[in-house]
Amino acid sequence: MIVKNYKGFLIDLDGTIYRGKERIDSAVEFVHKLAEKGLPYLFVTNNSSKTPEQVANTLEGFGVSATSEQIITSSLATADYIYEQKQEANVFMIGEEGLKNALEKKGFALSDENVDYVIIGIDRAITYEKLAKACLAVRNGAELISTNADKAIPTERGLVPGNGAITSVVSTSTGVTPIFIGKPEPIIIGQALKRLGVGKEDAIMIGDNYDTDILAGINSGLDTLLVHTGVTTKEQLLVVKKQPTYVCDSLEEFVI
Amino acid sequence: MIVKNYKGFLIDLDGTIYRGKERIDSAVEFVHKLAEKGLPYLFVTNNSSKTPEQVANTLEGFGVSATSEQIITSSLATADYIYEQKQEANVFMIGEEGLKNALEKKGFALSDENVDYVIIGIDRAITYEKLAKACLAVRNGAELISTNADKAIPTERGLVPGNGAITSVVSTSTGVTPIFIGKPEPIIIGQALKRLGVGKEDAIMIGDNYDTDILAGINSGLDTLLVHTGVTTKEQLLVVKKQPTYVCDSLEEFVI
Repeated sequence: MIVKNYKGFLIDLDGTIYRGKERIDSAVEFVHKLAEKGLPYLFVTNNSSKTPEQVANTLEGFGVSATSEQIITSSLATADYIYEQKQEANVFMIGEEGLKNALEKKGFALSDENVDYVIIGIDRAITYEKLAKACLAVRNGAELISTNADKAIPTERGLVPGNGAITSVVSTSTGVTPIFIGKPEPIIIGQALKRLGVGKEDAIMIGDNYDTDILAGINSGLDTLLVHTGVTTKEQLLVVKKQPTYVCDSLEEFVI
Repeated sequence: MIVKNYKGFLIDLDGTIYRGKERIDSAVEFVHKLAEKGLPYLFVTNNSSKTPEQVANTLEGFGVSATSEQIITSSLATADYIYEQKQEANVFMIGEEGLKNALEKKGFALSDENVDYVIIGIDRAITYEKLAKACLAVRNGAELISTNADKAIPTERGLVPGNGAITSVVSTSTGVTPIFIGKPEPIIIGQALKRLGVGKEDAIMIGDNYDTDILAGINSGLDTLLVHTGVTTKEQLLVVKKQPTYVCDSLEEFVI
């Protein structure tokens, strides 16, 4: 498959570079080629719980060379987004280390008083009190932002609640629709392009999940590549209206 | 206001008999009259967290004589409902004392293995692990039942998440629509009529909340009385399609 010369590559992680604890060799090789040719790339993940340093460590374990600057999580994109709206904001967050770290690095005050933004990321130490404070702040006028709308997270035990499910407590209780930042929303893609310094016409979004990765690219006006190494099957792809720009079984077919 | 001779009275609690910690004198007087005349009545509450004994104690504090048999909570109605479906069921519950007590009294095994029913009631000690177990059981085929769909609970601090909001984690994550038991669903009204031994044509549902109390009555084919001592205002009532059978400012207008 010979394709257009892209100047920027946005690449999903789980299902694209690795599957759980198993690396996908063709994808790792593909990233090596990008690095050799000096083509800019950024890993784009909806995971809000990890810091970019932690994600870079995971990638290193799979033999993928990536600095923390080459990773954008939904937490980083959320912090960037709020910073563009209001640089000195009081934020009340529900979330784990990755979100806390991203918000603190932008200098936001974490508080449950005079809250400008309620931010929700996956929090496996969720409590009723945290959810109550989020609802009270939203009812007092705080804007409701959620790192991502993923409904479920795959684990060895099966599918457990994702951040979209946690967020639904606050949206259901208050009747307020959240702003979602992560894929398939265009916000995280916009932040990623800014970091890469590449226009949407010169970039491509690569991933295994049509509903998040590919729709994020389509919603942002990017070319897209669906690779069948993860979630979306060929059968599922038959029935979607807006097809990806390219489809392949493995990234070794994708000549750059 | 002179009305039909009803043989059974279903009466809401909060907003109808008391408002928070304040008793509503005309309503307490009305219940006294029912008792004097030997007319059967049952208090019907969506509250799932308290046992009927605890609710009876609260009522006694307001000067309302009520035995625990004269109270049906959404937890009792849930336990009755499941018992009618399957007498020896494994249930996984999220909830507080009122729900645990109701399920144990019916002899159900509380377990997170081989789960037949996942039951969700308000749980202010909610954890991610409880929600994860609920999602896993539902994905394994357990039926999803929720005591009530209330989106918010009024407190001194403001409106905090109700059980409908907590339930949305599991329904959003799994895509499974729960069976709700409490008002405005007809299930709790059906259980209440069974307990009173009265047919729907001889009973009336009395409450302050159009969206729960009155709709529960209408959905069950009962006559209804809306009393303006709580949630629903006269202005709100102007725009609803199905009007209550009777409307009054206080229960002293309601001659029995």
